[in-house]
Amino acid sequence: MIDTTKTIPEPCHVLITGGAGFLGVRLARALLAQGKLSLAGAESVDVGRITLVDRAAPPADLLNDARVSTVTGDLNALLSSGGAGLDAHTDVVFHLAAAVSGECEADFDLGMRSNFAATLSLLQACRALKTQPIVVFASSLAVFGDAPGVPLPPVIEDTTLPTPQSSYGIQKFIGEQLMADFSRKAFIQGRSVRLMTVSVRPGKPNGAASSFLSGMLREPLAGVRATCPVPADTPVALSSPARTIAGLIGAAQASAQAWGPRTALILPALTTTPAQMAAALAQVAGPAVAALIDWAPDAAIHNIVKTWPARINARRAAGLGLLPDSSFEEIIREYIRENTDAIK
Amino acid sequence: MIDTTKTIPEPCHVLITGGAGFLGVRLARALLAQGKLSLAGAESVDVGRITLVDRAAPPADLLNDARVSTVTGDLNALLSSGGAGLDAHTDVVFHLAAAVSGECEADFDLGMRSNFAATLSLLQACRALKTQPIVVFASSLAVFGDAPGVPLPPVIEDTTLPTPQSSYGIQKFIGEQLMADFSRKAFIQGRSVRLMTVSVRPGKPNGAASSFLSGMLREPLAGVRATCPVPADTPVALSSPARTIAGLIGAAQASAQAWGPRTALILPALTTTPAQMAAALAQVAGPAVAALIDWAPDAAIHNIVKTWPARINARRAAGLGLLPDSSFEEIIREYIRENTDAIK
Repeated sequence: MIDTTKTIPEPCHVLITGGAGFLGVRLARALLAQGKLSLAGAESVDVGRITLVDRAAPPADLLNDARVSTVTGDLNALLSSGGAGLDAHTDVVFHLAAAVSGECEADFDLGMRSNFAATLSLLQACRALKTQPIVVFASSLAVFGDAPGVPLPPVIEDTTLPTPQSSYGIQKFIGEQLMADFSRKAFIQGRSVRLMTVSVRPGKPNGAASSFLSGMLREPLAGVRATCPVPADTPVALSSPARTIAGLIGAAQASAQAWGPRTALILPALTTTPAQMAAALAQVAGPAVAALIDWAPDAAIHNIVKTWPARINARRAAGLGLLPDSSFEEIIREYIRENTDAIK
Repeated sequence: MIDTTKTIPEPCHVLITGGAGFLGVRLARALLAQGKLSLAGAESVDVGRITLVDRAAPPADLLNDARVSTVTGDLNALLSSGGAGLDAHTDVVFHLAAAVSGECEADFDLGMRSNFAATLSLLQACRALKTQPIVVFASSLAVFGDAPGVPLPPVIEDTTLPTPQSSYGIQKFIGEQLMADFSRKAFIQGRSVRLMTVSVRPGKPNGAASSFLSGMLREPLAGVRATCPVPADTPVALSSPARTIAGLIGAAQASAQAWGPRTALILPALTTTPAQMAAALAQVAGPAVAALIDWAPDAAIHNIVKTWPARINARRAAGLGLLPDSSFEEIIREYIRENTDAIK
């Protein structure tokens, strides 16, 4: 006898902007691997479809997965033509697409277009669906900046006043405000998360001031010398790629009640120093590898890095069970496991 | 013998958006009356020209002043056609034009157009001048809202985290962020000030939840009964029209150093209660006038009013010499002096 009172939950549709980027690709792989999602605390459903929106194509493993489709183009252009892949069956949008901080500082209009206008257009498109999709917005710890007259407190909390000192930080903070009001008006179910500097990023240096925080591990592991441009005892707040992805998925899964206020939630960070990172590298890969780090402080880079918050009390994240990496050794081991090609 | 090393400072051009509104008209009159302005701490110059931009025409006294010109129309339309009256000789812009909170809550798109898009367009137009004009932005205490999970502290400071609970508040807070970054990039010299509820406003009730804070004085002074819809001991933060205008002018006159950080500055407020306001009315105008107040608490209005911050530590404003009204009696006397037509 068939129980007709029981409806089979429909598989969900996940859309990821910036879906071919470093985090977008990892997020898609993680969602495909777990196969199920419990959206906003509701019953778990199959991940039926993932749409990756990006200017570039994602890697072959994603292109070849039957559950993955791609939309290629500029996000603003796609949104203004209604072709970004959003539809009434889209249950959750991860908005990761952004111009990075250096680009936004060099080209103000680029940042306003890529980070600000695109975010507003995306939220308006979600609102137009009238289905109140979950939107997870990747904000950034860059909303915090040490400003003359408004110094940062020694420990950053979820309730600390952001005083962004870069166009990128301002644009992310404005995005958080739009997310909050679109949520309050019940146009979307918004989840703004502030991401940390991610380490260890695979690939090549990207010219960001934070690039060395991956490079000083990644290059020595590949047998190449690398430079640490800040004093060895400079405190820094980091998150592994895996914990960052867990934070994004956790935000989509949290019930409205567990999530709490509409303000942004800070993802957890491990506070460490380059000296501790080098010691971890020596322990995991041997002292000869750690010896490939050149210690050559560069005042220009140090002046930027020292304005970044390094100590975080990610109270709300902890309440959702999202915890920082347990040690930098563990972060290095994860990198080695996942990037065997890049290890000498 | 002529001292050729001494240049005669040129008269300044002031542009006021919302220039035909309650505050815009008062601001224009105050600037014309004082005749001079010391912009951003520089040498005092004559107020040569005031351009009032508004959908409506200003009163005759302003229209008839040779120093005043008007631009009539919708601010967004004027800005997109380049016809808002801004030019390379514009030294200071007071941006007062806005849709009010009730309108923005009822019509989300109206608020996004009038408060958000217009502010961004105005700032882009100022940036395009390449002359770094001073821009004084009228933000609002409405950026603060008592939110579940993020309760307001008992006393609001310049550094308190805003968690707006209305679209109006969000739009004003986003305006503050744009002002900060346009200033940091040296596109403008930005001065964001958070205005208080203004009392006593002349004219008619305007349907805002705060309307009674003027009406309970204004109507009895005209011999008409009025209602106070909140308990007599409800704390409220108010500013007279004169102190509000002094705050706007003070913001334009403050040097960059005196002004301090690029975050918004809270204008000073007098914390009082309806009971104290009624007692002041009795003292200034007699007990028979104060007896025209009906005390009829309305839970709906009280529920709104009690989420407003009532105790403000306007530290930065005090540093600029901007102080709250000394007493509510003084506020009533000012109203009577300036509105003899409206007194019975």
